[in-house]
Amino acid sequence: MKRTYTHLADGRQLIYYDRRDDADRSAPDERELPDPPPPSELRLDPLMDEQVAIAAHRQTRVNRPGGSDCPLCPSKPGQLSEIPAADYEVAVFENRFPAFSHREGGTGRCEVVVFSPEHDQSFATLPLPQVRTVVEAWADRSDELAGLPGVRQVFVFENRGAEIGATLPHPHGQIYAYPMLPPRTRRVLETLKNYDGDLFGDVLAAEQADGSRIVGTSEHWTAFVPRAARWPFEVHFFPHRGVRGLAALRGEERDSFGPLYQDVLRRLDAVYDMPMPYVSAWHQAPVGERAGWRLHLQLYSNRRAPDKLKFLAGSESAMGVFINDIRPEEAARLLRAAL
Amino acid sequence: MKRTYTHLADGRQLIYYDRRDDADRSAPDERELPDPPPPSELRLDPLMDEQVAIAAHRQTRVNRPGGSDCPLCPSKPGQLSEIPAADYEVAVFENRFPAFSHREGGTGRCEVVVFSPEHDQSFATLPLPQVRTVVEAWADRSDELAGLPGVRQVFVFENRGAEIGATLPHPHGQIYAYPMLPPRTRRVLETLKNYDGDLFGDVLAAEQADGSRIVGTSEHWTAFVPRAARWPFEVHFFPHRGVRGLAALRGEERDSFGPLYQDVLRRLDAVYDMPMPYVSAWHQAPVGERAGWRLHLQLYSNRRAPDKLKFLAGSESAMGVFINDIRPEEAARLLRAAL
Repeated sequence: MKRTYTHLADGRQLIYYDRRDDADRSAPDERELPDPPPPSELRLDPLMDEQVAIAAHRQTRVNRPGGSDCPLCPSKPGQLSEIPAADYEVAVFENRFPAFSHREGGTGRCEVVVFSPEHDQSFATLPLPQVRTVVEAWADRSDELAGLPGVRQVFVFENRGAEIGATLPHPHGQIYAYPMLPPRTRRVLETLKNYDGDLFGDVLAAEQADGSRIVGTSEHWTAFVPRAARWPFEVHFFPHRGVRGLAALRGEERDSFGPLYQDVLRRLDAVYDMPMPYVSAWHQAPVGERAGWRLHLQLYSNRRAPDKLKFLAGSESAMGVFINDIRPEEAARLLRAAL
Repeated sequence: MKRTYTHLADGRQLIYYDRRDDADRSAPDERELPDPPPPSELRLDPLMDEQVAIAAHRQTRVNRPGGSDCPLCPSKPGQLSEIPAADYEVAVFENRFPAFSHREGGTGRCEVVVFSPEHDQSFATLPLPQVRTVVEAWADRSDELAGLPGVRQVFVFENRGAEIGATLPHPHGQIYAYPMLPPRTRRVLETLKNYDGDLFGDVLAAEQADGSRIVGTSEHWTAFVPRAARWPFEVHFFPHRGVRGLAALRGEERDSFGPLYQDVLRRLDAVYDMPMPYVSAWHQAPVGERAGWRLHLQLYSNRRAPDKLKFLAGSESAMGVFINDIRPEEAARLLRAAL
């Protein structure tokens, strides 16, 4: 795996990941770019004791541009994008409109991970070697970002589909290096502290023993709808070995993830025979925390019927109480039957 | 204030609230209704140690019916709704598709609060005496529901607008009597436990002293955009006196709420000159808890521009970290300038 560090015209970092050792990554960014926006501000909500990011500059970001204006396609003459190369495999760069940033005293960092040079691809249909390169990039960036001063957790994720708020259709994910412990992470750490035993191992063993919510397995992973799923379609991927994060996955565990993940993504798209909007969220151990954490992927869609989305209305968004309209066993059955 | 308890054809309770003591509420429910759906199920998410409601029966609920099929309009011959009366002022009834229910061993209860007999009204434009009747109904139901066995917190709220997931356009709110402590409430209780002093009083005093985020005041209430607002437009209403819940509000405090609240709702609609989708959420003290809680209303919209909604994508919905695209001071300024 070849990794090439470069910079964009406004100083942001761009990193290419290539399987081929002879890939030429010398193309310069020939755009004239404005100065980076001011850093976002973190403010404490005193009632919840939680940090909120105020990032007013993001209002001007591009929303679902067409093919020729896509900032993630390879550059060509007269059509310069965020990626100067005329072709690439996987590229990672600092977000131009970051929710968190490392500049001017801010802490944290936001990166974009471009999964493919092809605008109309989706993760579900990437060639398997390409998936493997993405996993390498995730692991490598997670490792490096966890080492930045002030970073408390590295969050690797993908928002896919306009229905869930993705602003760019070109296949890509993001990485947030949070300068604080996110609320969900704090909550899980609290549960771990109060749990006597191997929480994640016990959850996995219970799902394997029950079987009714399993969607798929591979040699090193199990994918299941959790018994208390919050979303109409929600699938968790647990590695069989207790590892803290993506960087700790062995080669065979990385190999074994892609086919299972792509199979489940294709099932999601097949359930209603339409591309399913989804969030795919890697929950890695926070920096410096060990206490029983196990890496897991939470994949979920807000679609609850072909013509209906689940909204986070009053109960969910004001109180945090989720109401799921599809029984988890039924969601698992639909996914198993979809292909 | 006259309160009349009646029942619908399937046994659900219906309560009328009337200013007039001679209102006739004897009209029977003449529909033939199917049996109530099975109760929803509460399941524990073992990683978060939080309860999730699995309520599969709600998939069949009506979505945004037209005027003649509206289940909240007064009944007339050949057009029987959830409310048998030919006219009414404010009506409260048990939800036919509850997320929580008291039947067959379930605990909790979900009610619908109909704000007006007029289908095309909105809370912002109700006559003031009507608003006062709604406040009476909220307080009365909060008091009664808090006394049901197993109820831990009474949540009075309104989801308004299709963009935020409201399924009925007729002006109405809801009440959930939760059989558990909701996650947001647990979080605030934790903050209160660790805070030395009057947390809510200090937050209110700080906002009043700063002034830049105040949207409006009345004799007994202050409305402000919180310093760490999570939503593009978010306004909190604090009573000046520390009260635990709606039932504890004095007459003059109830009188003083409506005009301020309606003023802010009208400003929300005026900001972009279009009806603003919103969630309006009353945070009352949980049952039996005293520790420094103060009643407060959290009103927020997911609209961040005339043509853009804020989505709870990866960071918000998977990690709980909110990113707000509008500075709270700017949101307050827009609301102050809107009328």
